[in-house]
Amino acid sequence: MTTAHDILLTNDDGVAAPGLAALERALDGLGRLVVVAPDAERSASGHAITMTNPLRLSEVARSPGVRGYAVNGTPADCVKLALHTLLPAPPRLVISGINLGPNTGTNVLYSGTVSAATEGTIFNIPSLAVSLRSYARDGDFSPAAHFAREFAARILSRGLPEGVLLNVNVPALPRDQIRGIRITRLARYRYRDSYDVRQDPRGRNYYWLTGEDAEILKPEPDLDAVAVEEGFVSVTPLCYDLTCLSFAGELRGWLDGSNLKA
Amino acid sequence: MTTAHDILLTNDDGVAAPGLAALERALDGLGRLVVVAPDAERSASGHAITMTNPLRLSEVARSPGVRGYAVNGTPADCVKLALHTLLPAPPRLVISGINLGPNTGTNVLYSGTVSAATEGTIFNIPSLAVSLRSYARDGDFSPAAHFAREFAARILSRGLPEGVLLNVNVPALPRDQIRGIRITRLARYRYRDSYDVRQDPRGRNYYWLTGEDAEILKPEPDLDAVAVEEGFVSVTPLCYDLTCLSFAGELRGWLDGSNLKA
Repeated sequence: MTTAHDILLTNDDGVAAPGLAALERALDGLGRLVVVAPDAERSASGHAITMTNPLRLSEVARSPGVRGYAVNGTPADCVKLALHTLLPAPPRLVISGINLGPNTGTNVLYSGTVSAATEGTIFNIPSLAVSLRSYARDGDFSPAAHFAREFAARILSRGLPEGVLLNVNVPALPRDQIRGIRITRLARYRYRDSYDVRQDPRGRNYYWLTGEDAEILKPEPDLDAVAVEEGFVSVTPLCYDLTCLSFAGELRGWLDGSNLKA
Repeated sequence: MTTAHDILLTNDDGVAAPGLAALERALDGLGRLVVVAPDAERSASGHAITMTNPLRLSEVARSPGVRGYAVNGTPADCVKLALHTLLPAPPRLVISGINLGPNTGTNVLYSGTVSAATEGTIFNIPSLAVSLRSYARDGDFSPAAHFAREFAARILSRGLPEGVLLNVNVPALPRDQIRGIRITRLARYRYRDSYDVRQDPRGRNYYWLTGEDAEILKPEPDLDAVAVEEGFVSVTPLCYDLTCLSFAGELRGWLDGSNLKA
């Protein structure tokens, strides 16, 4: 591949997912696009990368003028492989989505969609994750695609600070019923979901994770999950500076005069 | 299972890994232990959880008095399944490790070891991840096991703030050569690793991630990767409050008077 690209598209629902096609159509004219996405659904793959097995890449048809590739790996694999090997130059933007189902609150830790965007920020490329709060296979992606384009255009013109990505969640509403955009914080969930315990024909148990029955802790209007429930587009700036400086002082107290020494 | 447990042990190198056995031995007498770990190596699995397939659980032999279970899933699956289904009551502590290989800096995003501890904090259980900076299969885990026990004892007596986990990395040195303990921040890496492009017998390419050639950005003594390189035990308090509040103000400026509206 010899042409540079402006925008790398990926997702975790797989290269054939309608949300990815809707995103691709919505970006038409905004820059040169390339698609590198998993060959099948990889939901809840978190930030997994494939090290013990090789990856395969196959070309897939996209819109006219857009190259597309399917990878037998995770969303993070797709971005890593594209940036290290496939693309002749770094794109100006990585977009992951449009995911079928929201990626809000604690769930972003499990999200392949958000992890693909995180992989972009690790390479210092501005990155955007877009999700639709719907699980209907025939969901209407067009309002989410509209906002994806608007945020993409804004990032291309203004950039993002190093290490920051935007996580956008769009309610499953017609565009004229969406109440506006809220800048939000990540919610924290308490999970009440559990495992179905079933028996196989040989009488042995197996365990299947049931749906996500999650309760929002301390719900406030500026939490992402609350905003999108209330009909707003939620946009959360995320960064992965995980060090908890506020606890470092107390931790120092643990070490002083203790047997916690070499 | 009817007995409550004090400490849940897991890892990402698999239930048979020597680092897990060393950890189990080191904790002897500190509380009632239970082991729930992947049935095989799951390195770089990030925070992946298994939703589309069922999980299987099989009992495995551990030390006298310790129940052990192997799960055909990721480290996060092991903790989730243990806490939702297997254990009659939440343990007082989750420990993940001892990992063969360090989990420092940006690498914690890919780390199954750290993700298992993160899953503990999602359940509000104090959690600890321990890794040894060695890739030698016959590495000596005993210094790392010593520090794992010391930190575990401290957490059991003092607790940890909600949502905080400790990420401990131990140099591969005899205990009397370890220079002390440093409280650290997560380093940021720039990855120079790449993919080996090989050809299969049919002449088709496949791609294999090569070793981790990572450069520490702005190295400082209080970065985890630097501390452990210099012969110190690194302990980093981590929390997953990913919202980047510092960028929220500028982001608000994007929305004002723009066409970024519903």
